[in-house]
Amino acid sequence: MGDVTATAGPQPRARVQAMKEYHPPLGCRDALRLDFNENTIACSPAVREVLSQISAGDLTRYPERETVEAQVAQHLRVTPEQVLLTNGVDEAIHVLFQTFLDSGDELLLPVPTYTMYEVYASATDARIVTVQAGDDLVFPFKALLDGISPRTKVIALANPNSPSGSVITREQIITIAQRAPHAVILVDEAYFHFYGETAIDLLNSIPNLVVARTFSKAYGLAGLRVGVLAGSAEQMKWMRRVISPYSVNSVALACIPAALNDTDYLNWYVGEVLAARKEFESAIDAAGLRRWSSQANFVLAYIGSEHRDFVRRMNSAGVLVRDRSNDPGCDGCVRVTIGTREQMRLAAEVLKEVIGLMRNGKEKEA
Amino acid sequence: MGDVTATAGPQPRARVQAMKEYHPPLGCRDALRLDFNENTIACSPAVREVLSQISAGDLTRYPERETVEAQVAQHLRVTPEQVLLTNGVDEAIHVLFQTFLDSGDELLLPVPTYTMYEVYASATDARIVTVQAGDDLVFPFKALLDGISPRTKVIALANPNSPSGSVITREQIITIAQRAPHAVILVDEAYFHFYGETAIDLLNSIPNLVVARTFSKAYGLAGLRVGVLAGSAEQMKWMRRVISPYSVNSVALACIPAALNDTDYLNWYVGEVLAARKEFESAIDAAGLRRWSSQANFVLAYIGSEHRDFVRRMNSAGVLVRDRSNDPGCDGCVRVTIGTREQMRLAAEVLKEVIGLMRNGKEKEA
Repeated sequence: MGDVTATAGPQPRARVQAMKEYHPPLGCRDALRLDFNENTIACSPAVREVLSQISAGDLTRYPERETVEAQVAQHLRVTPEQVLLTNGVDEAIHVLFQTFLDSGDELLLPVPTYTMYEVYASATDARIVTVQAGDDLVFPFKALLDGISPRTKVIALANPNSPSGSVITREQIITIAQRAPHAVILVDEAYFHFYGETAIDLLNSIPNLVVARTFSKAYGLAGLRVGVLAGSAEQMKWMRRVISPYSVNSVALACIPAALNDTDYLNWYVGEVLAARKEFESAIDAAGLRRWSSQANFVLAYIGSEHRDFVRRMNSAGVLVRDRSNDPGCDGCVRVTIGTREQMRLAAEVLKEVIGLMRNGKEKEA
Repeated sequence: MGDVTATAGPQPRARVQAMKEYHPPLGCRDALRLDFNENTIACSPAVREVLSQISAGDLTRYPERETVEAQVAQHLRVTPEQVLLTNGVDEAIHVLFQTFLDSGDELLLPVPTYTMYEVYASATDARIVTVQAGDDLVFPFKALLDGISPRTKVIALANPNSPSGSVITREQIITIAQRAPHAVILVDEAYFHFYGETAIDLLNSIPNLVVARTFSKAYGLAGLRVGVLAGSAEQMKWMRRVISPYSVNSVALACIPAALNDTDYLNWYVGEVLAARKEFESAIDAAGLRRWSSQANFVLAYIGSEHRDFVRRMNSAGVLVRDRSNDPGCDGCVRVTIGTREQMRLAAEVLKEVIGLMRNGKEKEA
């Protein structure tokens, strides 16, 4: 055995060695969870009720997703061939990138945006071309159009975007798709329900458009891992080759129909968030902090150089918020998920207190 | 929009275009399921009981796998850094290949073996080098050693193998690892519980060894999707970069401790399968069919040119079995999962009847 232990062992691909490690700040989260843009309460009780109908035998069989894929397709008003369920949107992005991004290709990415686009693209041989948003974090439409090259193979657009909450108009999506007919335009609508505008109805007229949805946000099912890709049957066919046929688990598949059916719960939760967002934006303004206009279930605020201290103080007071200072163009920024009005009134109190304490501390130092 | 609809749309990577489509024959499976090597009954009742303790709020949070990873590590007697939980072994293979297989690399694969190795390798830029087993389907040890080249980056060994049920000895694994210190040796122990021999204790002395386990087979949790990779902390670190931090769902994570704890159930089920395998092998022999020696929860039998007719007749009689005729070297073969003695006595009856009818049909034709 000596010979073997002496070697360094096999090395991973150079691209993997160059990848940044990504450690989401999970851990003890028994507090007000305003840090991961989840539903801050729970999923619909009707979905929870499905668990009681699942037998030991149901857990034992390999999952079959075709029936549920057809139901999701009907919900989205597309055909079953146009829909692929995935193990969260993370797998959707992963599979889409692995299907399309080759050596010599470019991923065009407006930044700041969802971190995992860059992570999963790093595992491919493609080059990542980023387009930086301005200080207003408005979608850099013109710069993105200028960034399109013959090598552009995928353009990933979160709409609404994270961490800013900014949006891309329908006309902008159409123009981008027309200017890059050789590229897949991924419109990631993870936060769709808080915005209300979708590109799904464009799928039949724009063959290079792919829309992602998720059950992890408004539906409150982040634990179950269900994402959705919708696009042309042709594009979906390629992605079905790369994805595991069993990647969406049986419990998730059993729960999705109930989630789709309970529109009352979804509407109630979205209504709460929209009302709470308005109130909480006022609280941020009252605290004298700069913030960005958001169409999602979160708001980005500028804290400045004390962003780490702010996050720590908020967490200590039982309100988990997310430091986004490392996102490109977001130095000093913190993102706060919006929950219900009751939750956000509490968060607003804590915010006011923490900001007050931090300012007092500064005054004493001065 | 006319300009856009006129284009063919973006093309996937050449490798993806060349991939074979893989459609597992799922669908209506309300019969005796001897076609997917699942547990044929159900998971432990103690695992099912966990579902009743899961709240709506639990489904809503992103999954956190560290605690359960540590428990699985303890069960396997390795450190938590040496263990990575995956969305089934399918994701384990997928991630391992994406981490290590680059353009110019080779995957060395004894065949026949588990289909998904080739599927996931096809999505990388590596070359797949297959080593064909002989007519006896015994592990082609010498030919595999001869197949090792400086470009060999991964060697995937299912132990026991599917569809044959043949095994690789501990000494063979050690020799392979020594001869290919520049390659990752993946020993896929999905069927470990029916065989009893493991390479996990070699992990600390062989740095290029990675062992896979699953909760989909003996534990009876194929619907939940939990696989395990165990290897050196160094190799696991690279794979953690490529994998989604949320790929194992919360329900699965909640259930794993109960599955690990209920050793009585596991031992009972494995004991049933081993006793039933012996009986069913006698039934195959009595039917005058050739079969291969198996250390797993399935047996491969030679039916001949009427393999499709055989599978159809068995399925019609309520016993789902799996045509493996397209596996390399398995022309005319059918694989039968072994369940409990009661189930396999029924399956043996049906087998006898179907073979009898097929022979009668032939005699009448003659």
